[in-house]
Formats: sequence, C-alpha cells, structure tokens
Amino acid sequence: MMKFQGSHILSVSQFDRDAIAKILQVSAQMAPYASRQKRCHVLDGAILSNLFFEPSTRTRVSFGTAFNLLGGFVRETVGQENSSLSKGESLYDTAQVISGYSDVIAMRHPKMHSVEEFAQGSTVPVINGGDGANEHPTQALLDLFTIQSEMMHYNKGLDGLNIVLMGDLKHGRTVHSLSKLLILYNNVKVTMVSPKALQMPDSVISTLTNAGHEVVITEEMAGNLKSDVIYQTRIQQERFASKDEADLYRGHFSLNRSIYKQYCQENTVIMHPLPRDSRPEANELDTDLNDLDNLAIFRQAQNGVLVRMALFALTLGVEDQLTQYEKPVNWYTNKMIK
Amino acid sequence: MMKFQGSHILSVSQFDRDAIAKILQVSAQMAPYASRQKRCHVLDGAILSNLFFEPSTRTRVSFGTAFNLLGGFVRETVGQENSSLSKGESLYDTAQVISGYSDVIAMRHPKMHSVEEFAQGSTVPVINGGDGANEHPTQALLDLFTIQSEMMHYNKGLDGLNIVLMGDLKHGRTVHSLSKLLILYNNVKVTMVSPKALQMPDSVISTLTNAGHEVVITEEMAGNLKSDVIYQTRIQQERFASKDEADLYRGHFSLNRSIYKQYCQENTVIMHPLPRDSRPEANELDTDLNDLDNLAIFRQAQNGVLVRMALFALTLGVEDQLTQYEKPVNWYTNKMIK
Amino acid sequence: MMKFQGSHILSVSQFDRDAIAKILQVSAQMAPYASRQKRCHVLDGAILSNLFFEPSTRTRVSFGTAFNLLGGFVRETVGQENSSLSKGESLYDTAQVISGYSDVIAMRHPKMHSVEEFAQGSTVPVINGGDGANEHPTQALLDLFTIQSEMMHYNKGLDGLNIVLMGDLKHGRTVHSLSKLLILYNNVKVTMVSPKALQMPDSVISTLTNAGHEVVITEEMAGNLKSDVIYQTRIQQERFASKDEADLYRGHFSLNRSIYKQYCQENTVIMHPLPRDSRPEANELDTDLNDLDNLAIFRQAQNGVLVRMALFALTLGVEDQLTQYEKPVNWYTNKMIK
Repeated sequence: MMKFQGSHILSVSQFDRDAIAKILQVSAQMAPYASRQKRCHVLDGAILSNLFFEPSTRTRVSFGTAFNLLGGFVRETVGQENSSLSKGESLYDTAQVISGYSDVIAMRHPKMHSVEEFAQGSTVPVINGGDGANEHPTQALLDLFTIQSEMMHYNKGLDGLNIVLMGDLKHGRTVHSLSKLLILYNNVKVTMVSPKALQMPDSVISTLTNAGHEVVITEEMAGNLKSDVIYQTRIQQERFASKDEADLYRGHFSLNRSIYKQYCQENTVIMHPLPRDSRPEANELDTDLNDLDNLAIFRQAQNGVLVRMALFALTLGVEDQLTQYEKPVNWYTNKMIK
Repeated sequence: MMKFQGSHILSVSQFDRDAIAKILQVSAQMAPYASRQKRCHVLDGAILSNLFFEPSTRTRVSFGTAFNLLGGFVRETVGQENSSLSKGESLYDTAQVISGYSDVIAMRHPKMHSVEEFAQGSTVPVINGGDGANEHPTQALLDLFTIQSEMMHYNKGLDGLNIVLMGDLKHGRTVHSLSKLLILYNNVKVTMVSPKALQMPDSVISTLTNAGHEVVITEEMAGNLKSDVIYQTRIQQERFASKDEADLYRGHFSLNRSIYKQYCQENTVIMHPLPRDSRPEANELDTDLNDLDNLAIFRQAQNGVLVRMALFALTLGVEDQLTQYEKPVNWYTNKMIK
Repeated sequence: MMKFQGSHILSVSQFDRDAIAKILQVSAQMAPYASRQKRCHVLDGAILSNLFFEPSTRTRVSFGTAFNLLGGFVRETVGQENSSLSKGESLYDTAQVISGYSDVIAMRHPKMHSVEEFAQGSTVPVINGGDGANEHPTQALLDLFTIQSEMMHYNKGLDGLNIVLMGDLKHGRTVHSLSKLLILYNNVKVTMVSPKALQMPDSVISTLTNAGHEVVITEEMAGNLKSDVIYQTRIQQERFASKDEADLYRGHFSLNRSIYKQYCQENTVIMHPLPRDSRPEANELDTDLNDLDNLAIFRQAQNGVLVRMALFALTLGVEDQLTQYEKPVNWYTNKMIK
C-alpha cells in the first residue's frame, strides 16, 4: 500500500483499493471528533496553510475546520491577495516559501495541474483542493465515503453498487472523479442520465466498461432511476445557446418529490456536490425534498470534514495516535444530540 | 427566564429584564480574561464560524477575539468571497453546511432579516452581527453594559437613568435598539437632540413613552445636555441635499471640549458607536475630548468583547464553568497594568 | 540596552548593537520550534492582530506563523476590507479599538509613517510590517540574521563582512535598511553594483562611509563580485522609459550559474528579498541557481519566522520562558529531517 506520511494528495488516480480503504477507515474514526462527542488534540501546535488562490467558502472552511478539530492552527490566503504570483513569482518559489512556514498545505487554484507544479517546490505534504477543470480529489473521496456510509444502513457496500449519475455529465468534474474511483470496486452498475449534448466523456465511459462495469446511457428518467444512489449535478445555463434551450433541458433532468416517488426505489439516496441553485428558475434538486431522510446532500458536505481530517492525519503520520490525544467536550452542541 | 443554551441571538426584542440581567452579569465575569489578568480555556477545541458577508473590521475582530479569549478556534469568511450564495445557494443550504462545520456562528449580512432566515437552517446557535438596517443586538447590549458599568462609579444604575441621544436619530440603528432595551428599566429620562429632519421615529418614541419614560424632543443643545450619559451618533452628509446644509446641521449637534464644559454636568459620560469620523470637516465628536476621563468610547468598544464572550458562553452552556478552565497569564500586557 | 517589553518595533534606527545582538540571539533560540523539533506554548491564549491594510502574503503569513509557533491565536484583517478608515476614522481611533482586542499588533500600511502614527494610539506593542517606502524593519533584521547564520559556516561574522548589493539600489527599501544596520558593525566592505540611474542614494552611502566602512560604487559585475554575500534586488521595468531600456539594464545586473562560476568566489552566499520574478523576460536571479547550496533565498524567507518569533517574545517579555513551555512534536514533518 502507498505510504501516506509525507505524501502529496493530488489525484484520485494515485490510490489503489487498499489505499482508499485506509482513507475511508480513518475517516470513519474521525466521526466522534467531528460530531463533538470527543475532542482530539493530536495536531496541537501544527500549522495548515490554506491557500485558496480561487475562492471557495465551503471547501476552504471545511479544510480549516478539519485541521482545527485535530487541534492545529490554520493560516489562510484567499483569492486576489496573491500579490507575489502576480509579480511573476513561480509556483515553485511560492511553494518553497509557504512550505517553510507550514506542516501541511491545502491548495485550490484555477489553473489545471498548478497544484502538482506547486507540490514540486513544497517541503511538506500538499493536498489538492481543486485545480480548475482537472481534479478535486477530496470531493471524490467524500462522495465515496458518503455512498459507503449511506449504504451501510441497508447492509450494502461499494461492490455491487447501482448508481445513477444525472445532469451535466460532460462538465461535472465531480462525476468524472467519482467514476475513476468506482473502477476499484466490483460489479458496479452506472446509469448516466443526461441530455445528449451533456453526455459523459467517452474516456470516462470506457474506463468504467474496461473495469467490467455495466454502463447505461440514457436521456430518460422514467425507468432508469431505480438505484441505490442518485448523484445529481447542476445543468448550467451558460452551457447552452439560449435560456429557453437550457430551461428545456433542466425540466427533464432534475429531481423533485413527485418524480422521486414515481420513479425511484424506496430508499434511493440522493447526493449532490453543492452548492445547489435554489432559485425557482434553476429547476435543480427541488427544495420539496428537504425533509426526505434519504436526501444525503448535507451529510455529504459534513463528511468532507471527516475525509479531510483523515488526509491530514495520514499525511502527517498521526492516524494511530488519535485516542492518545482525546479529551471530553465541555460545551453544548446540537451535534451531540443529533 | 429564556434558555440561552442552544438559542439564537437575533434581536434585542427576544430578551426580558431577567435575560438582560443574566447577559450583563456574565459579561462582567469576563473582565479578568479580557483584561488578561487570567486566561480561560473553557471553549478549547470549539469552532466559531465568523461569517461576514458584509465587511466590518471592528465587529468581526471583536467576535473573533471574544471566542479566542475563551480558548476556541475561529474560521472566517469575509465579503465578496461568498461565491456559493452568488451561485444561487439559499441561506438555508449555506446554514446547513456551515453549521455542520461549527459550534456557533456569528453572521453579518447586508440584507434585513437574512440572519433570521439563515438561522432557520442552522443546527448550531447563530448570533446576529448586524443585518442591514434591521438589528445589531450585540451593539445594543454592549451599549447597555457600558452605561451600567460607567454608572457604577457614581452609584447609579439603569433605573432612573438620565440619557441624551444626539445626532442622526432617524437612521441610527444603534439608538433605536438601545431605546428598545431601555424600556425594560424604570423611570428613564431620554432627551433626543437632533435636527428636525433627523428626529427619532415615532414608533421608537411611543415605545419609550408607553413604558412610562419621560421623553424630551429638542433641536437645542443648550439647557438639554445635563445628563448621566450623552450618546452621540454620526450625522452623515449623504442624508442631506447639499454639503452646505449638512455642515449647518453638523455644527449644531456635536460635542467638543468647550460645549462639554459649558452645557454638560460634571460627570456626564460620552458614548459613540464608532467609527468616529475624525476629519475636520466632519465636525463629529471632537478629538479635543480624547483625554477626558468620561469619554467612554474606547471602553465601550472593549466592552463589546465582554458581551460577545458572554453570549458565546451562554449559548454554548459553559457560563458556570469559566473558573474551572482558568490559567494564569504568562506574557506581558499593558492591559494588566491599566 | 533598550527595554523590549512593551515597546513598539518601528524602525531599524531604534536599535543599538546590543539590542540587535539580543534580537539575533533570541531568533537563534527559536530554531528548534520553527524546525518542529519541539513545540513552544509560551504565548498560549495570547492574541496577535495581523493588520495588513496593504496585502502581502509572505510577510502576513510569516507573522501569523511565528505567533502560532509560540502558541498564540491570530486575528487577521486584510486589504480593502478596512471600512472604518475609509469612513474617516483616524489611525489613533483604530489603534485604540484594535489594541483593546489584542496583545500585540503587526501592521502593514501603504502610507509612510502611518504605522508610527497608529502606534501612538495603541495600548499594546506594534510591529511595523512595512509602511510604504519608509521602513520594513523585520525584513532588515531577517536579512542580517541570515548573513550572520550563513557566515557561521565559514567561521565569519558581521564584523569584517564583504558584501555586494546589486540591482536597483535606488528604490530597494531592503538594501537601504540593511545598510543602516551594517553601520553597527566594524570594517564592512560594501560593493554597490547597479546602473547609474539606479544607484544607492547619497545619504545611505555617506552613512556607511561615516561609519568607516569601505564603499565601492560600480556598474561592472566583472571583478567586483568576489565577496562573502551578494544581495540581489529586482530591477523593475516601470522604472525605465521603455521595455528595451529596461532589458538592456537587466541583462547586466543579474546572476545566473555561469556568471556565478566566473565572477564569484567559491562560497559566495546569494540573497534576495523575494518574490523573485521567474518569468524569462524578467532576467532576474536565474532558476539555474536553484540547486546551488549557497543560494540562501529560501532559508532567508524561513529566517523571517525566527526573527518575528523573537520580536513577539521580546515585546511580550517571555524570551526567558521558552523552555518552560516546551513540548515534544508528535506529527511528521520534513522539517525534522532536513
């Protein structure tokens, strides 16, 4: 199995099944700390540099929270402040300097492969928080963790999974990465529901079929939504010639309560990478699903904290010391009750 | 009395006299920690999300400092970075996600009632740090705390208070909220000194008179400034047709050393919500008052830390555990001497 | 010797040789904590306000990291958010308020002498993180610390130093401040290599000669680079009439591997204040020097953490308590190995 300690986390492709199993197992061990049943101070005094050259509230706060929950400090840099790079500083130089201040770095950057380039100059582990259209490995890992933990309620696992991917499958970075992880498991059925213009790229499809998985490609929701999980992604208006054309598509590729009741099986779990566009004209995952137990979208976001805690613990080599640095929680939190 | 633990703090109207007394009492208990006579670690490991969708250095830093002084970590989001909301994410969804990362949330937002809407999606206590023209309850509470603590030097209290509100009383959110809190006390006299165009709204006046308080409305400083407290607010030029008109007003509704000597009583305490416009043309609270002992404006700002510490301790249910998590301070600070 | 505890750090001119010796000595004591051989919690519970009214990733993160490495919390304010100052608040008022929240303040501001003005209203120590073209004392101190620590490998010190300053010596704030510090030492030889138009200001030159130092002024690299240290600064295109003129200059005043081999002595240490413009057209310190042991530019940046830790410890009076608050490090870091 890969050695995590001291390694960069750049792409889902760097993991084999054992490595993924280790990440998911350590993520699960983080639950009592993330739910505030206990506190963990294993990274007390360590410093995360949270470098978000492209802003992203959710991912940035999730990384920072994960590090704080292990006891560490967070130093942040957000967006346009990045004056050194604009003065012509190379990613190599920036990495040399910032890694000299840090124990681990989480980085988002709008340019593809920039995080990899940065990592070459870093003296500490770098975790990719999204590099443009390329990769967002922690999102893929939290998606996989969510599927696994939701399936546990039904005594199912990742082998034999029956999953629907729906929406804009062409541009959705998250469904590409998730597909790449699913090839590590056996007998997966992937149904891809999308308008023709927004179909999954051939390369992703052949990756799945080469792994022996069943792939169904369709434009129809009816008859194709009976599955363990539906993973919905946004259909963005800017991908279409006109608003009218976009509206046409959107109406046919989004879930609401009545479609769920009509077409899904009883316990189909609904996932979405968020943010969800809740404006009525967006016609995305409908808010009338909000009180459905199987709407997993907010648990999915919370699982991001667990997975990021796990990656910090693994790359800094403290995954076996968690319980040694445990303390009781002495403040009130709803999370203890839920 | 209201239950603080697990509650949101959204409006001054949610408190009765007992609840306010509790907040003021816990605020006073925070003084040794805020003045660095002792450290308190009761919230060690807890996470505050400081969400400032509208920037505000003073209020944001004050909330963050308050949480740090109780031992907790702070994750911050400031201003335009708020990309998810701009992508159409509802406040409900944002609240679900961010509260999943946090133990408590402090939030400022330019839109009225947005913090209330956000709170409905939050699984942890939300403290309103200002929602547009609507409410800024922690400012009102720190104002009340300041009045109480300043009056103590003269063996006075909030009952029987004689207070002057002066300046732009029409648009000043702080004087409206403070007035709403004053109705909880007995025999208060409120003198309102302002240009006619900037008088206190009728609804606020009648709230005070209905509570049995004496209200004096005037445009004259002479003969009307003999009081325990003068609370001055800014007269903003943009409220007037021209700079000349604004200048005319400003000259008649602001304090300086000679007016103070001439019209106020010996120990009148001067308050101001800050920031104070110190440019000469602003003609606001004059800097020649800076070395006056009774200028309470900077103590007032510091009291904001005490009140916010109290609200964190109360909403997280640790107000009775403060002394348990006390430590001595081992670094030098002027605050210990002052 | 000057009393550090409770003092502001505003200018290199405030230090005598003994004070500098103390700063360098305490900086050296910080090495085991900065290299993660040990943790230090001496400032546990203390709060740094990191006020960067002008953005600067490197300096800001370095201050924040330094404070975290001593165990303290950091509250940050960056750039245009500074709404109170834009509403006409004086630096005095801002200082009164923010210092009421903090134990120490690090501040950068684009306006000359603004940090000094701010310090007059502060009740806690203020450390100048750069005030426009005026001063950047922590950079000068980290440069001096770097020279001293690099020279130790050759059993040399600051007395008798032979240093080359090269590039834009007219506008480079860092070489001016470094020169002011060098007058505290004996028998220093300073060779200034620059285009005529970008020569060192006369006032700096006479400061050095008045101290009895040897100063050589030249436009030629050949024959003038044999020295203990070469300190290179950027030649910025905007200082010239045209890009062609700038290119002409740049080609003659920057180091690369072959120039280094040809003109420098065997162990000449290369320094640069960073960021370095790595775009080929910039023709600055060449990346072909990156694997040269004597390229000290990244060690120089890391030394900034040591010097800032020292200044925090000294101004807060805990420099003698470091070992009392030591703990072992329990996480993996490359820094322990290097």
